[in-house]
Amino acid sequence: MSVMSVTKLDTLEPLESLSMTDRVENSLRGYLTENGFKPGDALPNEQEIAQQLNVSRNVVREALSRLRMLGMVEARPRRGMIMAQPDLLVGIEKVLNPALLSQGNLKDIFEMRLILEMGIPEFLFARKTEKDLNELEEILSRQQDAATVSKEEEIAFHGKLYEMTGNDVFSRFQTLLMPTFDHVFTGYYNTDKKIEIANPVTHHDLLAILKNGTPDEFRKAMYTHLAVYFASIL
Amino acid sequence: MSVMSVTKLDTLEPLESLSMTDRVENSLRGYLTENGFKPGDALPNEQEIAQQLNVSRNVVREALSRLRMLGMVEARPRRGMIMAQPDLLVGIEKVLNPALLSQGNLKDIFEMRLILEMGIPEFLFARKTEKDLNELEEILSRQQDAATVSKEEEIAFHGKLYEMTGNDVFSRFQTLLMPTFDHVFTGYYNTDKKIEIANPVTHHDLLAILKNGTPDEFRKAMYTHLAVYFASIL
Repeated sequence: MSVMSVTKLDTLEPLESLSMTDRVENSLRGYLTENGFKPGDALPNEQEIAQQLNVSRNVVREALSRLRMLGMVEARPRRGMIMAQPDLLVGIEKVLNPALLSQGNLKDIFEMRLILEMGIPEFLFARKTEKDLNELEEILSRQQDAATVSKEEEIAFHGKLYEMTGNDVFSRFQTLLMPTFDHVFTGYYNTDKKIEIANPVTHHDLLAILKNGTPDEFRKAMYTHLAVYFASIL
Repeated sequence: MSVMSVTKLDTLEPLESLSMTDRVENSLRGYLTENGFKPGDALPNEQEIAQQLNVSRNVVREALSRLRMLGMVEARPRRGMIMAQPDLLVGIEKVLNPALLSQGNLKDIFEMRLILEMGIPEFLFARKTEKDLNELEEILSRQQDAATVSKEEEIAFHGKLYEMTGNDVFSRFQTLLMPTFDHVFTGYYNTDKKIEIANPVTHHDLLAILKNGTPDEFRKAMYTHLAVYFASIL
């Protein structure tokens, strides 16, 4: 054996420990993609797939069940399985459980909410309508006590901003992140000393800028509005 | 029947058409969450679950297989199923197929890349290192032809920026979006007339600001760098 082949041993990748179901699932996804299956197209039946892959029908059924969970395929009465339009966020939705996610994932989700809020002003200003601004006004007018912001107002106000981007994936994604965001921040906040922001920006301030300001002004104000969070990580 | 009850008929929601596997999957996820299962904890075995839920073992096996795909549970030799740390993005990764996603989803993904790039400057400036800046320099120096930007440079440069946020979820998510982004943009670009940007911002310009500028300057430059995309949608 030459020295060359010894030193190159680290390029020898360990075999992936895939279960039979993992492998059938991967084969199926590859097959459906490469053969250009479109939503509505009928899939071969379980038995045909099992024969072709030389595996048991149970394994095929499990793999198809996974694709069904992702919305990639659907069972139709008397038509068997057909290709469907997958739900982009269903996988994230099912695992977004703060008790299960790693500390690293939780920190990343916390930060992603901030990144996303700082990224939307151009979309908000390009797509805002009178109706949107009135709804924001309405949300703020519901507040009983002007000095403190309730959790309901927080969620309603920021949720409305997400909706105003006109981007459903963004809006759903960001709404999904919110409970985890709270969970992480409560963790930080209890251990760190309280951070005071000199000139806090309220939801009322943000709304005023959204009405008459610019995307840049809005973003600066949003940064200050979120300053307590930024201060806890950057 | 009163008029009231007739007008309220639209609040009567159609029953969800959940398969038995969907219901077992939901029950299991609920059970694991409510009972505070942590990564490493052993799950009851298939047979126990089937008996308790009064369903067949095949259905339980399918439901568990779905949770395994999401990384929520793992099979361990001689230990049966244990709780695991789910992979947040595995679900998205499996369905991000431009041929299957709806036009609405594709548009949303396209826009989300822009939102995310506009949201990261604070993170880039807070976390950049000499090593990062040298790597960006290196990526740009590989370019043969200064006039055109290759697809490789595009991916390497922006990918390095994502990595520099120090946020793995963000970085992986954004990298996942890139092929779909290209797919959508190519679609727009072929049908619309060519958009000319007066003073384009290059990767070299972005790097110079990242070295000596501010987050605000970087964001303004990034907006211009991405102007052709923004112009196609806003």
